[in-house]
This record gives sequence, structure tokens and C-alpha cells, in this order.
Amino acid sequence: MVKLTKAFPDDDRPYYAVIFTSQRSEVSADYDSTAERMLALAATQDGYMGLETVRGADGLGITVSYWRDLEAIRAWRLHGEHTLARERGRADWYRGYRLRIAKVEREYAWGEPL
Amino acid sequence: MVKLTKAFPDDDRPYYAVIFTSQRSEVSADYDSTAERMLALAATQDGYMGLETVRGADGLGITVSYWRDLEAIRAWRLHGEHTLARERGRADWYRGYRLRIAKVEREYAWGEPL
Repeated sequence: MVKLTKAFPDDDRPYYAVIFTSQRSEVSADYDSTAERMLALAATQDGYMGLETVRGADGLGITVSYWRDLEAIRAWRLHGEHTLARERGRADWYRGYRLRIAKVEREYAWGEPL
Repeated sequence: MVKLTKAFPDDDRPYYAVIFTSQRSEVSADYDSTAERMLALAATQDGYMGLETVRGADGLGITVSYWRDLEAIRAWRLHGEHTLARERGRADWYRGYRLRIAKVEREYAWGEPL
């Protein structure tokens, strides 16, 4: 029997996922502390709904953050400290990345909550 | 200067992302071979557009696959071998997972192709 539950049972509005896929460079200075700071800062933004992030041993990473609407995503993009971190990311920490903004239409969960 | 490119420049139709976030169990028997087989099999399906997958040392994984439309996602879900693998996954390989189907509305890329 498959148990399916909604992630956000109290909120049936559509919401958005920002899928950030990236390949790290060899530069490590300031990366970990800045990444931690960005995760903590994102979580304080209006419209933030959650985040999942994984990086593999080969340097490929996927971070998916969830947001109430496009306005919340836009406000986070324009945040000054986040903008500086992105510029630093392009200068130092990433070889390349891809960003997709997608509207979540269906959702299922099974087993222990992630 | 930020270089932004479309991922699929020849195809401006909206497409879909399937975001599969999972936490592995301690059971490893048959997992790697089945996971490899599923990635290879997915790539042969009509409407498949690509896939990114990362698993961290703590067992948390994110796999995002990209599809032309909801019909292609549905056909892959109903594929017999995929259905059996999912059942095995719930019985043995995963503590829990979450699946989101999302329509990609905007996309940006920077640097080396991923």
C-alpha cells in the first residue's frame, strides 16, 4: 500500500520550485560558509517554503528551493547579499550552472518524511 | 557578464520536471544495478529530455528528470519494469521519498554546460 500525502496540506495553492544544478570548481575558499549563510538567509525570506540540497563527490550539486510565488523568487534574487554571493559564485566557485523555475502541479510522498 | 542560454534552444514549448527526492535505507542489494538500468531505460522513452541525479554521503538523493509533457511522464510511470523497480524501492531501498511534477516556466544557464 502506497501512502501518498501532500507536502503542504494546509496550502493547496500552486507553488514554485527553483531547480539549481551546478558543477563546482576547485576553489573552496569561503564556499562552505557562504553556502550555509545563503541557506539560512533564504529560510528567512517571505514566501520561502523549504529547500533540499545535495552535492555528490564529483562536485555536481542539485539544490531545489520552494517558494509561494514568482514574486517571492524575484525578491530573493534581488536580495543584496544573495546577489553578491551569486557574483562570487560565478567568479570563483562554479564551472557552470543551470537554473529552472517551475510551477509544482502534483505532489506525492511516501514513507518517512524527508 | 552573465551568459544565459536556453537548455533546449530548438524547443520553446513548456516542458516538465519530475523532482524525486529520496532517503536511502541501509539495503544495498541490487540497488546500484537497478538504478543504472532505470536511468538507461528512462532515456529510451518517448518524450524524455534529460536527467540530473546526485546522492550525498548521508543517503539523501535528488533526481530531476525532464519530459516533453504529462503524457510522457504518465507512460514512464506505467512502464512495467519501472513499476516493479518502484515497488522494490518501497520494500527495500528507500526510507522515504517525495515526488513533485512541475512545469518549467523559465530557464537560465551560465558557464560550462552541465
